[in-house]
Amino acid sequence: MKPEVLAELRRILGPDLVHTAPEVLVCHSYDSQDYSAMPEVVVEPTSAQQVSEIVKLANHYKIPITPFAASTGRTGGSVPIFGGIVLSTRRMNRILKVEVGNRLAIIQPHVINDHLNQEVAKYGLYFPPDPSSKGVSTVGGNIAECAGGPHCLKYGVTRDYVQGLEVVLPNGEIVDTGPFGTRDYASSALIGLVTGCEGTLAVITKAYIKLIPLPKVYRTMLVGFDDLTAMARTLTGVFYSGILPAVMEFIDNAAIRCVEAYLHAGLPVEAESLLLIETDGDSISTEIEFNRILDICKNNGATSIQIAETKERRDQLWLARRSLNAAIMRYKPVKIAEDIAVPRGALLEMLEGTKKIAEQYRVHVVNYGHAGDGNIHVNIMLENDPEEIKRGEEAIDEIFRLTLRLNGTCSGEHGIGITKRKYCSWEFQGASYTIQLAIRDTFDPNHIMNPGKIFE
Amino acid sequence: MKPEVLAELRRILGPDLVHTAPEVLVCHSYDSQDYSAMPEVVVEPTSAQQVSEIVKLANHYKIPITPFAASTGRTGGSVPIFGGIVLSTRRMNRILKVEVGNRLAIIQPHVINDHLNQEVAKYGLYFPPDPSSKGVSTVGGNIAECAGGPHCLKYGVTRDYVQGLEVVLPNGEIVDTGPFGTRDYASSALIGLVTGCEGTLAVITKAYIKLIPLPKVYRTMLVGFDDLTAMARTLTGVFYSGILPAVMEFIDNAAIRCVEAYLHAGLPVEAESLLLIETDGDSISTEIEFNRILDICKNNGATSIQIAETKERRDQLWLARRSLNAAIMRYKPVKIAEDIAVPRGALLEMLEGTKKIAEQYRVHVVNYGHAGDGNIHVNIMLENDPEEIKRGEEAIDEIFRLTLRLNGTCSGEHGIGITKRKYCSWEFQGASYTIQLAIRDTFDPNHIMNPGKIFE
Repeated sequence: MKPEVLAELRRILGPDLVHTAPEVLVCHSYDSQDYSAMPEVVVEPTSAQQVSEIVKLANHYKIPITPFAASTGRTGGSVPIFGGIVLSTRRMNRILKVEVGNRLAIIQPHVINDHLNQEVAKYGLYFPPDPSSKGVSTVGGNIAECAGGPHCLKYGVTRDYVQGLEVVLPNGEIVDTGPFGTRDYASSALIGLVTGCEGTLAVITKAYIKLIPLPKVYRTMLVGFDDLTAMARTLTGVFYSGILPAVMEFIDNAAIRCVEAYLHAGLPVEAESLLLIETDGDSISTEIEFNRILDICKNNGATSIQIAETKERRDQLWLARRSLNAAIMRYKPVKIAEDIAVPRGALLEMLEGTKKIAEQYRVHVVNYGHAGDGNIHVNIMLENDPEEIKRGEEAIDEIFRLTLRLNGTCSGEHGIGITKRKYCSWEFQGASYTIQLAIRDTFDPNHIMNPGKIFE
Repeated sequence: MKPEVLAELRRILGPDLVHTAPEVLVCHSYDSQDYSAMPEVVVEPTSAQQVSEIVKLANHYKIPITPFAASTGRTGGSVPIFGGIVLSTRRMNRILKVEVGNRLAIIQPHVINDHLNQEVAKYGLYFPPDPSSKGVSTVGGNIAECAGGPHCLKYGVTRDYVQGLEVVLPNGEIVDTGPFGTRDYASSALIGLVTGCEGTLAVITKAYIKLIPLPKVYRTMLVGFDDLTAMARTLTGVFYSGILPAVMEFIDNAAIRCVEAYLHAGLPVEAESLLLIETDGDSISTEIEFNRILDICKNNGATSIQIAETKERRDQLWLARRSLNAAIMRYKPVKIAEDIAVPRGALLEMLEGTKKIAEQYRVHVVNYGHAGDGNIHVNIMLENDPEEIKRGEEAIDEIFRLTLRLNGTCSGEHGIGITKRKYCSWEFQGASYTIQLAIRDTFDPNHIMNPGKIFE
């Protein structure tokens, strides 16, 4: 990094918000997948105006700039693979306003999911997207990756809650769509492009977040099955019944055993698979829907049903669910973690196909995820052995081919980043791919904004 | 139109689907606002392949091409202002598939809203967007304009129901995102750009429509107020209560009188304003929410409450609501109809400000619309007198200035087309405007797709 660039960054931000110490750089070199890369400098702007000046500077010197929030991403979106500037959002972490009558929160990007929900819950309001990392992940990061989570089955993903954005474009221009952005075409097109762009088109500096009424009660059950067909039949039964549960999470036997060994939560370790099902809303309809789903489970071959009768038990089941990603590392030391989604009617075919592929390539697969959305986290668990890892990678290629044959997508909710570029290039059709590249050139002719992400 | 172009169109479509007869042209020259323009030829393709060939031909000869569905639009989106080819979607009117377990309908663009709902209701499913023209308007048109409607308060607008699209781009390329388009970034960006683009970026040839469970019951009330403040207080009371009603429609006194004179529906003509409120869902929670809203209305100064105790009465109230646009023509012969939206907390200020502007410019204003969304249809009613019409136009300019001061938007749900280009150019900020123009150039370098719409 040229000294004059560092000097200019210090002029914009003051010396305390510009970091070149190795211990700071290394903390901004990775996210929650395996690949890491070192930035040359980390900056911590406190305002859109400062972000604008930093971006203009980067544009002038053609220096890559990677927005960085809580780095809980799963596909490398915040990893500065070409070095350059990491732009940390951590000093922009305030909830600016909660407008109760408008059901709107105006926030800076680095507000933590759980903090936003704690604050708006005071007014009986709710922001549903709930990635497993919600205790540390930021809403700005959620928007950049268009994050999902278990409750997105009923409530939709992050995109459905972005009513407006203030962004800094790669030329340094600040655009604020206001709280009503999704109502006008130009703003809504901009919001649609920036949401999920993983920082490749703009830096998010403020968000207008739609809130909904907080559910009054939750009812949670854990249902065991001895075979996948019964599980799939139950899923179909619920969707044919006209009920939209808040949550329908799938966990396979290997994942159940790993998390039970870790948490001792009393999960039925003999079950071939589990569904974690939750209904929510007002107390009466939540109970009615819960009981109807119980019947559907019984009528479709459930072999065990546990009902969470206390808040503590519900919390424990959710802790088990959210610990899966870490717990399955008990299984084998190397994990290739993917995140596919297929139309839910094709879920059984996907799971059975995955099993066959695993047998063919002699690897172990652990599956869990949002069954109600058809979104499954497929994890290939491997010994630290080059030959076995090679087989794992071949198996993943096959799994993605199957996903696309079933009209699915290679990235259910984890974005594309660097780890899925290859598969998404299979998925995106000619014109939607080339148009997207042309749009990126329109926004960012010098390719300074998080280069190397999404597109190969 | 050059004879070789007509010959080529006849080769692509056969002679019966290419029309140059004046009686056909005139039927494709207008929508439901005042301005009309004649096309040179009307074509009726039956497949994406034919659309692709037509678009390629138009691109080669640089002939404007205007997609045309039911022409129920309110801002001129389907009016061929530069002549050329009108591409009618009317031969692509089939529901291709309803996947009940996936809660998905795969449709051609010219499926009528009500027809889609009649078909999917057989499976207990529902497509919520309900413009007043839903008996004749098409889902493809809804997508092109991102249409709303009364029930969009609870359920969201058309954009929220587009899971995927097949479109023909201006270069003739056919892109099909598949049913899961909103799950991957490139496809979701494309869907976001095409939804609401009013045919300026692509022709929609197929849509993957998200469906939700059909509400089991509806409860409907018509609440009268003697002053706007009580109405606004009621609205706020409901939103603070944590209830999200399906519908909260506002009708002012002038509109009430016009529609009552037309329909004799027993509306309370003395009320200064009415709220038409509906809750829906399962029978128990619908009733609970309905009763809580009744209390909120009583506690905030409602002067009359009518409850629709039968389906017939509900239908009659809805007929009254949907007839407003036509009925208010009784008031005065010339109407300038606008469609603004402000954050709902600013609704009272907007309505009172509109009143003042009307007094200042000595014109009559009739207001109705989706109060719960802050979306009001402001109608300036005028004698057919040039001086009065000039005052009306000046008043509309003032109303739009007020809208923007209140963080609102000039187009709540009717699109921009030709009638709102001027106001939207006030609204769109520098970069979001220029980026949108650059994106249009990327899609359509020859500007053949519905030129002259949205942007001035």
